[in-house]
Amino acid sequence: MPPVEPEVIPDVARQDRTGQPEVIYGPGKSPAQVLAVAGALVDAGVRPILLTRATPDQVQAVLGADPTATFHERANVVVIRAVERSSPGRIAVVSAGTSDLPVADEAAVVAEAFGLTVERITDVGVAGVHRVIERVPDLERMDLVIVVAGMEGALPSVVAGLVPAPVIAVPTSVGYGASFEGLAALLGMLSSCAPGVLTVNIDNGFGAAMAAHRIVSRR
Amino acid sequence: MPPVEPEVIPDVARQDRTGQPEVIYGPGKSPAQVLAVAGALVDAGVRPILLTRATPDQVQAVLGADPTATFHERANVVVIRAVERSSPGRIAVVSAGTSDLPVADEAAVVAEAFGLTVERITDVGVAGVHRVIERVPDLERMDLVIVVAGMEGALPSVVAGLVPAPVIAVPTSVGYGASFEGLAALLGMLSSCAPGVLTVNIDNGFGAAMAAHRIVSRR
Amino acid sequence: MPPVEPEVIPDVARQDRTGQPEVIYGPGKSPAQVLAVAGALVDAGVRPILLTRATPDQVQAVLGADPTATFHERANVVVIRAVERSSPGRIAVVSAGTSDLPVADEAAVVAEAFGLTVERITDVGVAGVHRVIERVPDLERMDLVIVVAGMEGALPSVVAGLVPAPVIAVPTSVGYGASFEGLAALLGMLSSCAPGVLTVNIDNGFGAAMAAHRIVSRR
Amino acid sequence: MPPVEPEVIPDVARQDRTGQPEVIYGPGKSPAQVLAVAGALVDAGVRPILLTRATPDQVQAVLGADPTATFHERANVVVIRAVERSSPGRIAVVSAGTSDLPVADEAAVVAEAFGLTVERITDVGVAGVHRVIERVPDLERMDLVIVVAGMEGALPSVVAGLVPAPVIAVPTSVGYGASFEGLAALLGMLSSCAPGVLTVNIDNGFGAAMAAHRIVSRR
Amino acid sequence: MPPVEPEVIPDVARQDRTGQPEVIYGPGKSPAQVLAVAGALVDAGVRPILLTRATPDQVQAVLGADPTATFHERANVVVIRAVERSSPGRIAVVSAGTSDLPVADEAAVVAEAFGLTVERITDVGVAGVHRVIERVPDLERMDLVIVVAGMEGALPSVVAGLVPAPVIAVPTSVGYGASFEGLAALLGMLSSCAPGVLTVNIDNGFGAAMAAHRIVSRR
Amino acid sequence: MPPVEPEVIPDVARQDRTGQPEVIYGPGKSPAQVLAVAGALVDAGVRPILLTRATPDQVQAVLGADPTATFHERANVVVIRAVERSSPGRIAVVSAGTSDLPVADEAAVVAEAFGLTVERITDVGVAGVHRVIERVPDLERMDLVIVVAGMEGALPSVVAGLVPAPVIAVPTSVGYGASFEGLAALLGMLSSCAPGVLTVNIDNGFGAAMAAHRIVSRR
Amino acid sequence: MPPVEPEVIPDVARQDRTGQPEVIYGPGKSPAQVLAVAGALVDAGVRPILLTRATPDQVQAVLGADPTATFHERANVVVIRAVERSSPGRIAVVSAGTSDLPVADEAAVVAEAFGLTVERITDVGVAGVHRVIERVPDLERMDLVIVVAGMEGALPSVVAGLVPAPVIAVPTSVGYGASFEGLAALLGMLSSCAPGVLTVNIDNGFGAAMAAHRIVSRR
Amino acid sequence: MPPVEPEVIPDVARQDRTGQPEVIYGPGKSPAQVLAVAGALVDAGVRPILLTRATPDQVQAVLGADPTATFHERANVVVIRAVERSSPGRIAVVSAGTSDLPVADEAAVVAEAFGLTVERITDVGVAGVHRVIERVPDLERMDLVIVVAGMEGALPSVVAGLVPAPVIAVPTSVGYGASFEGLAALLGMLSSCAPGVLTVNIDNGFGAAMAAHRIVSRR
Repeated sequence: MPPVEPEVIPDVARQDRTGQPEVIYGPGKSPAQVLAVAGALVDAGVRPILLTRATPDQVQAVLGADPTATFHERANVVVIRAVERSSPGRIAVVSAGTSDLPVADEAAVVAEAFGLTVERITDVGVAGVHRVIERVPDLERMDLVIVVAGMEGALPSVVAGLVPAPVIAVPTSVGYGASFEGLAALLGMLSSCAPGVLTVNIDNGFGAAMAAHRIVSRR
Repeated sequence: MPPVEPEVIPDVARQDRTGQPEVIYGPGKSPAQVLAVAGALVDAGVRPILLTRATPDQVQAVLGADPTATFHERANVVVIRAVERSSPGRIAVVSAGTSDLPVADEAAVVAEAFGLTVERITDVGVAGVHRVIERVPDLERMDLVIVVAGMEGALPSVVAGLVPAPVIAVPTSVGYGASFEGLAALLGMLSSCAPGVLTVNIDNGFGAAMAAHRIVSRR
Repeated sequence: MPPVEPEVIPDVARQDRTGQPEVIYGPGKSPAQVLAVAGALVDAGVRPILLTRATPDQVQAVLGADPTATFHERANVVVIRAVERSSPGRIAVVSAGTSDLPVADEAAVVAEAFGLTVERITDVGVAGVHRVIERVPDLERMDLVIVVAGMEGALPSVVAGLVPAPVIAVPTSVGYGASFEGLAALLGMLSSCAPGVLTVNIDNGFGAAMAAHRIVSRR
Repeated sequence: MPPVEPEVIPDVARQDRTGQPEVIYGPGKSPAQVLAVAGALVDAGVRPILLTRATPDQVQAVLGADPTATFHERANVVVIRAVERSSPGRIAVVSAGTSDLPVADEAAVVAEAFGLTVERITDVGVAGVHRVIERVPDLERMDLVIVVAGMEGALPSVVAGLVPAPVIAVPTSVGYGASFEGLAALLGMLSSCAPGVLTVNIDNGFGAAMAAHRIVSRR
Repeated sequence: MPPVEPEVIPDVARQDRTGQPEVIYGPGKSPAQVLAVAGALVDAGVRPILLTRATPDQVQAVLGADPTATFHERANVVVIRAVERSSPGRIAVVSAGTSDLPVADEAAVVAEAFGLTVERITDVGVAGVHRVIERVPDLERMDLVIVVAGMEGALPSVVAGLVPAPVIAVPTSVGYGASFEGLAALLGMLSSCAPGVLTVNIDNGFGAAMAAHRIVSRR
Repeated sequence: MPPVEPEVIPDVARQDRTGQPEVIYGPGKSPAQVLAVAGALVDAGVRPILLTRATPDQVQAVLGADPTATFHERANVVVIRAVERSSPGRIAVVSAGTSDLPVADEAAVVAEAFGLTVERITDVGVAGVHRVIERVPDLERMDLVIVVAGMEGALPSVVAGLVPAPVIAVPTSVGYGASFEGLAALLGMLSSCAPGVLTVNIDNGFGAAMAAHRIVSRR
Repeated sequence: MPPVEPEVIPDVARQDRTGQPEVIYGPGKSPAQVLAVAGALVDAGVRPILLTRATPDQVQAVLGADPTATFHERANVVVIRAVERSSPGRIAVVSAGTSDLPVADEAAVVAEAFGLTVERITDVGVAGVHRVIERVPDLERMDLVIVVAGMEGALPSVVAGLVPAPVIAVPTSVGYGASFEGLAALLGMLSSCAPGVLTVNIDNGFGAAMAAHRIVSRR
Repeated sequence: MPPVEPEVIPDVARQDRTGQPEVIYGPGKSPAQVLAVAGALVDAGVRPILLTRATPDQVQAVLGADPTATFHERANVVVIRAVERSSPGRIAVVSAGTSDLPVADEAAVVAEAFGLTVERITDVGVAGVHRVIERVPDLERMDLVIVVAGMEGALPSVVAGLVPAPVIAVPTSVGYGASFEGLAALLGMLSSCAPGVLTVNIDNGFGAAMAAHRIVSRR
């Protein structure tokens, strides 16, 4: 007598409650489960519909079922439905090094799918701090800044001390040894001497984008 | 030949750059140093001027020097100058248990001194989850919600799943044993299954208020 | 002169002492060792006889040797002998997300093999807390509730605040970054503000079922 | 304009939902707040009414206000109202060393106030394992066993291998150096090789008693 | 201009200083380096000559070069030269579960190669504590007991409380979740309530055998 | 109805089983409990009788009750009864810095009370490694060496590479910052590159002496 | 028979070996021991002679015995003998906040007592990064820069990216919550994205100065 | 609308600011990105140009594009351009065991590419401390010593106590169990009792070489 196979039931009422539909998180789901959840969300008429941390099997299944979906490879996100009209909000996604780009991409792709306008600023690590300073005029125009950094994770402190926008810090698991898979950057961002830095989980570009949408869309 | 006594030099240009003046952090400063920094900030005309994590000696020195200052005991904050006009922004400071109140107070006092309108919601721990649900109509009117919780730190996840406002989670060092001085709540908030929860350091009500001001004042 | 090859000697008297026979834990045993232990247990007449955390080689060996055995794939458990008569006890296995299902399945399969009646409740994460509340009438009928959750691990606190049954919390290694392979959920469950939550090791659905059997079978 | 003084609002409906009224946790509450909560619970007619982790000021205030209250010094618990009739349930509170007694006492006093019959077994550390074995006949008569131990926390494994009752393990912060304030015992209990050991937070005798009451009172 | 290729220079004088020749630790050495070191040790006339944590390439190289060498597979040790005469010392290697056997084997093979007489006692985990007690007469005849255990690592405490021999505890990385790759067992052994338990590194059967030889050979 | 006051029952049969009587560990015991246990041990005729980690109240109580007891202040040990005849065993207690002396003293006082002959070697930290080397002739005469060190805890590795005696390493909580109250020394000793170093808990001079007695007294 | 009172024997040959005499570390030494060591160093003619982490009793004893000694209160260092001629080396001690000044002072006082010329740069935290940049012309003239910072510890990365001098980073235990007594700053400095940052222990201004002297004095 | 593909922009001005050009860190870059950055650096005329932690694809791409590049396999470094003239500086790279050689090689290859003269000293672990002492005359001639060690990481303390040169300690991830991937060595080096030891990240031979170049090239 096997246990009943539990169905995967999406929380379709979430958009009504929070203004944000459920996003499909890939790991642990079979391609069939992903398609079932995506179908339920399409039927419910919510937007956007996204699949994050997608496995190759899931990507293939979704693209096969829906040719209008787009796959962002480095971000590892499939956009099944984007919002139809962009909001006026404008955010920057700032990153320190090349290795941080997948996480920065995840933040950017998700934010754009939710209708935000995203500007990318890359390669502005604190070991060449003039590079951030040169971008202050751009940063001052932003409604919000997402800062993605690994290793010592110092970039959010520098940015928050330069401009008035809210700063969401995303630690990445980039670095070796005593960076302990992103722990050094995480603790550094939480301990930032620049008041008002807000932190999300390690490598959680998705969460940063979701929070950014909550903040900017209420403007 | 002793080392030159270093002076404490406030960063008076910070308000121009970031919209937020430097706030005086008490620990490690002598009462004379606190008065000197406060005087420099008064001379620079910035507002608000606050002293956080004040020691009794510092409180006495500031209140003696400036009878218009007000001391908030449980929050342990001295408001030396508040802003002159309140902004239209409205936030809630939600807390779980009695032991979380000092941190919630720090957030509320700082936010009000920066001109935000603050509503307090207390005693809504997740062990009686109906208490949060009853307050959803209040929470839905907010521009932002600060959620203060110790122990397992689950309250921000519940709140973020109920309302569309941005949620800033403040873990507190309340609990014993395996809560490890707030680590359990911190890790829980960072790992929240509700997308968009933003986290600050343990017991950092001040930082939550500063971030809230950045977000709400740009509205 | 090699060291004597130690034999694997099952503790066949355990059922007499504790009411629960030894269960075969797969990792580190050769298929031949598994068959030898299973044979000794069959000879001793105990029930149930289970193999958990089975490797593919072990599964193949057991199914080949005993066609009446059943393999539960997602739970990764082989039921070699189930109990002959079910006990009157009724438990729920509640889980938060799709990724938690293998651990929830392990708990359910083991509990059923020991004769308990198991009801499954899935997809009731705290980010949509109404989903748990809707199931309170079901939960109130239970003799015990096993709650399986990863990430911040908040679900046991919510459940224990809603119903009178004992709650066994099983943290899972689901989540990334600061969930630290289940540590965030584990610490959260240990620090639960709902009194009376009992915790087992990370991903230990087996242990939760064994404890549930001890509790319910004495009724 | 100070923040509104938040009132402390007890969750008086908890007993209806869970069968267990809210227990007053001392730390962080003023004596006046404790009296106010206690009064509200008395008015609501719930039983038992307990104050745990009481401060001396709180103890004095409660005993002054209600001469029928009793203070258990080593357990640091004030019993303001006990239940009126004891349940038939019988549990043992087993402890390893003298330093573990305050935690064992907290468990015993709370369990008795909830109406359970408690038997104490002390000084049965695993370094003299025959002492536990001699008590097996007593332990076999129990509906549940709470085992309190610090240092390596091995006693629950031994007990759970000897008797069929459910075992709740309480790690204590007893030990020095690499016991890391109870972490060694906590990890050991979670990793127990005896299936079915259930664990609560470090030094959490209260939580063990609450869980025991949930289990035994449903019998 | 490449850096000079550093040669691997064995410390051939170690046996004169400490009574124990250098043992070849496999990881990170090429097969050629292993053969070179082994050859230098053979030339120096020391005994025994061992290769531990051998890689398959290294095993093949050594067995090919010296047909008298013997490979112990589960222990992953190659004995190139054993001592010529056994010492009178007698030790027991006690282990808890099947998964602990590779570490126990490493201890046993190394100890025997150094001339000790080794008795194996297996499957005596603390969840069936009578199994250890039944072996007390055997253990009382020993000059030293090595106890190998994973999970909560409680077995050394029980053994040290039963017999007068010195006890060397070897934690293994057996267990999952909160055993944290042997950390739970390590902390438990260091925190043992049985005075006189001595601990070596996780999975370090080799180190236990080397210490045992130092102790027993001086008798 | 208070819980029965549990008595403190010494394990008087321990000496028969293990050759070592129970030693009274001070923390958590009242002076009256200490006197009661000491009296029971005196009545049982065991030797030695020791009180470790004594509080001032306990010391005063014991010295008042038994004028032949001697208090070793820096070791914080009261010797109530020493053994009557010394064993032929000879050990060295080696320590690195002045701050390590209390732990070294605890080891030395306990070992002498158990009848061992102890030689002290102090101030031989690895930053002046010639100081250890000069003492090699002394160390070579020893049956066993206890090495007490804080900070990086490197001294046991150096000693074990110089002499054939067994080495028991005692990490101390000496050092600041990243020594993490003895953790750096503990991990270093467990990871020693000198095979055969045996480790006890942080600051556990007592445990080192107990193990040394087991080893040396069997000679 | 008490253990022989071990004498404190300074390593007077250290200056000959390493160019740096032994410095007296206060904690754990009696005032008499401090005076004895200081006397031995004076007799040996070494310079400088310093007492760090001094207790009030030690300070009083040294100043009473030698009126030429000078006490630096915030650094908590007594300079008993300074070097007679300064070296040509010039270093900067840069610090971020007021709370970091005691550690920065320890570094500065020790470096000056060893003959280095020290320039102080204070209040240049990364939240106002222009303050560091304004000091680049000063920093470019330095032979070495010691950077003292707590919280996220980002300042060394910024400095090392701006100037060619070697950078020694000193994490301080300043900050709360997730700074974990300096751990966040320590991990951040070790993980610095600016190549060539060298790190010492938390709050170890002394160690930074000693390393600086080794580096600069060889110029 | 995909996010703009961010370009990788090397910080070509870094050599002017710090005297050290940007070094290409392999992980996370495509071969094309590596070639682009290398080309930009060649165009800027800086020297040396290095690729560290190279992947096989990157090595092949660089060697294919520039036949004058040299690949150091065990160090995993490609030297694309070395400096043209060596500086007079002389450093030693000292390592303990065979497994530490890749990290020591990385340090040596990078230092030589920057123009330093490097002497290698290998197989001088502290378990045979005479081997270090024999090399003191060589070490005394050095301007700086890099010490590479895993396990307990004790070698830097010994070296810094023997010679006056600055010591840079590089912990390696060599060891098992409680060495925790280099953590034991890292904490030991940070806690060194030899004043003046400077530490870099685990396995960070590159960082040690960069710091050495800053120190020695200013001589």
